[in-house]
Amino acid sequence: MLSTAIAGAVFTSPPPNSIQAAVRAVGKNNPGGVLMIVKNYTGDRLNFGLAAERAKAEGISVDMVVVAEDCALTSTDKTAGRRGLCGTVLMHKIAGALAEEGKTLPEIVTIARDTATKMGTIGVCLSPCSVPGSGPSFCIQDDEMELGLGIHGEAGVKRTKLVSAKEAVKMMLDHMTNPKTTTHLSVSAGDRVACMVNNLGGTSVLELNIVAREAVCYLEGRGLKVDRMYCGTFMTSLQMAGVSITLLKLDDTLCRCLDAPTSAPGWSKPYLPRGVTDRQTPGQMTIDDSSTDTVVSGDGSVTLSQEDSVRLYNVLSAVCLSLVAAEGQLNSLDREAGDGDCGTTVSRGAKSILSKLGTKDNTGLPVTNPSSVALSLANIVETDMGGSSGALYSLFLTAAAKCLKTSTAAAAWSMALQQGIQAVTRYGGAEPGDRTMLDALYPASATLEKELSRLPPLEAFAKAVEEAQKGADATAGMKAGAGRASYVGAVKLNQPDPGAVAVTIWMKAALASLKS
Amino acid sequence: MLSTAIAGAVFTSPPPNSIQAAVRAVGKNNPGGVLMIVKNYTGDRLNFGLAAERAKAEGISVDMVVVAEDCALTSTDKTAGRRGLCGTVLMHKIAGALAEEGKTLPEIVTIARDTATKMGTIGVCLSPCSVPGSGPSFCIQDDEMELGLGIHGEAGVKRTKLVSAKEAVKMMLDHMTNPKTTTHLSVSAGDRVACMVNNLGGTSVLELNIVAREAVCYLEGRGLKVDRMYCGTFMTSLQMAGVSITLLKLDDTLCRCLDAPTSAPGWSKPYLPRGVTDRQTPGQMTIDDSSTDTVVSGDGSVTLSQEDSVRLYNVLSAVCLSLVAAEGQLNSLDREAGDGDCGTTVSRGAKSILSKLGTKDNTGLPVTNPSSVALSLANIVETDMGGSSGALYSLFLTAAAKCLKTSTAAAAWSMALQQGIQAVTRYGGAEPGDRTMLDALYPASATLEKELSRLPPLEAFAKAVEEAQKGADATAGMKAGAGRASYVGAVKLNQPDPGAVAVTIWMKAALASLKS
Repeated sequence: MLSTAIAGAVFTSPPPNSIQAAVRAVGKNNPGGVLMIVKNYTGDRLNFGLAAERAKAEGISVDMVVVAEDCALTSTDKTAGRRGLCGTVLMHKIAGALAEEGKTLPEIVTIARDTATKMGTIGVCLSPCSVPGSGPSFCIQDDEMELGLGIHGEAGVKRTKLVSAKEAVKMMLDHMTNPKTTTHLSVSAGDRVACMVNNLGGTSVLELNIVAREAVCYLEGRGLKVDRMYCGTFMTSLQMAGVSITLLKLDDTLCRCLDAPTSAPGWSKPYLPRGVTDRQTPGQMTIDDSSTDTVVSGDGSVTLSQEDSVRLYNVLSAVCLSLVAAEGQLNSLDREAGDGDCGTTVSRGAKSILSKLGTKDNTGLPVTNPSSVALSLANIVETDMGGSSGALYSLFLTAAAKCLKTSTAAAAWSMALQQGIQAVTRYGGAEPGDRTMLDALYPASATLEKELSRLPPLEAFAKAVEEAQKGADATAGMKAGAGRASYVGAVKLNQPDPGAVAVTIWMKAALASLKS
Repeated sequence: MLSTAIAGAVFTSPPPNSIQAAVRAVGKNNPGGVLMIVKNYTGDRLNFGLAAERAKAEGISVDMVVVAEDCALTSTDKTAGRRGLCGTVLMHKIAGALAEEGKTLPEIVTIARDTATKMGTIGVCLSPCSVPGSGPSFCIQDDEMELGLGIHGEAGVKRTKLVSAKEAVKMMLDHMTNPKTTTHLSVSAGDRVACMVNNLGGTSVLELNIVAREAVCYLEGRGLKVDRMYCGTFMTSLQMAGVSITLLKLDDTLCRCLDAPTSAPGWSKPYLPRGVTDRQTPGQMTIDDSSTDTVVSGDGSVTLSQEDSVRLYNVLSAVCLSLVAAEGQLNSLDREAGDGDCGTTVSRGAKSILSKLGTKDNTGLPVTNPSSVALSLANIVETDMGGSSGALYSLFLTAAAKCLKTSTAAAAWSMALQQGIQAVTRYGGAEPGDRTMLDALYPASATLEKELSRLPPLEAFAKAVEEAQKGADATAGMKAGAGRASYVGAVKLNQPDPGAVAVTIWMKAALASLKS
């Protein structure tokens, strides 16, 4: 884009000697000549002009393009006040690309001067800027905005009450293109334009993108073709909260120049048009078998007999009733280390399941299909139980569901327990010993898997429930390693973890129901 | 970089259903699978985890990498609080590039998880952020800064008085790499790193670049090789004033991924290392003859006879004395439309020339060489006269000097006057009729050129001075079209322009001196 940028003091033109030194340095490496791109401020015009004349006297070929695309002023005066604003960045890009193409200095100057007449910029601000070490450059109330200000904090043309982004964009673009002002940019339906939404310094990316969207919508609504949309921090007024919008009427040459590669960190790629993607992802990526080996595609999930469906219904009902009954106990345990709502949260989830479960003859859950039941429960607890507990149980059930698709044998239920626990561990970020539900779940699962090889399922499950109870009891002496209780830090905790206790409650209820 | 980004409400994790929809959409177009890059916040981990488990249940190959590169916390707790910060953007870039290269999902996950252990981030803020519609998220005094805060305005680890950018950068990087904290990034002299200086939202580009420079200097001072330096707005905390610094230890793979092309507007090119340029300007550009045809290279400038040198000395002396004498008159004229200092400015320049001019026998100016005299005068008025007038006269003299290099005939002086006037017109932005010095200069120059073809030089010059006077007188009825007087607008001006009058004064003095 540029060979060099010449900085003066903040908001001040650089002295001619600095400019002259830069022109000499650039001219030395560029026998084709030097183009200076100057914003239309009197001091800049004169100082750059002086440097240009001196460079010419030294035999350096140098020319100058002045950018003055400000559309704020309504005055008919031809020279004063029309400032160079963010359109200058587009000029840097275009002239830089033309130079890289090998165009001669006079060719570049001709295109650049023509380009300068095809652009317009207008800004609004919500706050002043301030020169480092000084106070704000002007005052503006919290509920006001100013239209058409300069990048050094110069006064704008209109101060109004705050309006929405949509209305502000309309105000800006209407002013910019108003044929009644001498500084307007003339646009017609069908024109191809580049639009640049520019951060004046202190505006959030969120707001910039809102403005960009409104600008595209408004311009398209007027029949313009927004071929290139840029949005970012291109030319600021230090930390000023505000945005400017620049329009440049495009032709094929200018488009090509805007798209030319550059290594300038300050330039950014345009937003892609709506619905367009340029992903180049090749097709040769192979499916990772290891992560999908437990998944059966299609509708291959097994269903239960009528008798077993009833047993599942009874288990669910018993589990939920036990958790509702334990609300006070769990809240009490949670008050020691958490915010005292563990019981309420668990009970809320259980009540919601109960309401969906309905009656044995008219159940709202697909109890003939354990996999589907698990996914249904996952949705219910995610939505109605809430909090981290809801998300963790939802994860548990979602992961477990996979194992119940192809089998409902005892080994499948054991595997479902293991998969559920692994999901909770993976996403929850805790491990056994961290004083969480995992301290009950891990020993139960390990025991279930082991005992199933030598005992009938119900007896194996009973052993597992005993181990869950031992695991939950052991949390009484543990320091919290994850979850909200971890913020309590080194404070000694004497009661067991309510999450682990909740596991023992629902496991015991399930066991009792299966035995009955 | 990314196929999609999934947004929740401001500072809130997106709901699992949104994530699931995105995973389905991306998975449909990418049979190789879907990688989710998640910042380490409990809500995000759980919601993305849920979506991943559900997607797996649907047969979509999906995996998840959690970024938790925050180096702020000194706690030894292993899971709570280590947040995902701006390093996530580097992760997006690296994983995206690997995908574009055609790497399989497990290969990408392996490199990404390894990368996550090789980065660290720490931030400082000077102001809070605020969720749209709400007040500031916390309070911080004007003279305070906070180290190690989160991107949602979560508390940091230390609040201090403001320190310089250099000290702040040292504090940040020392904390980040302190082996005594469990969350530190371990770096050693010789390590290759990428450094990313990130705007937390409301920081000026000026300040970002200062921080970037200090970061490079400090890291290089510790023997690290800063192979890639990024500076910009990558991951903000809305409009918070502050910066974060991210370090990533590089190897060839990561470097290649960072350098891979992307169309993401949010990504920007790294800063080039000091002294490096990547300009591709080709050599075929031709020198523009038209703009250099009056320039003679080398030391070919003509010199004056002893007699003519004395005449030039006398002219300069007379011109300056006349302008000093006119100080009060010009100030008085300037009070009508400007700020009343035109006479003072012109007189200051004239006095400075007089002091350099010295005596006839011991002059400080190269009066044997008119071209050199003009360039010397240009330097004096630029430096000592000041203001726009100083710059304009400096431009005038610099442009005029060229014409006096090869000839000192009357025609060369006439050409010098023309060139000087053209430079003032070009850079000053005014034209005849705008109530400026040009209204005296233009008719004088035109008359001189014309009369030289039929009259002796001194008589021709006398005619020119008459026309200058007429032109200056005519400015009394003109509206100001440029310069400070233009801001007076439609106010009626009755006196002539002081700049035009000054021209008649020095021309008359020169004529009188030449005649004597």
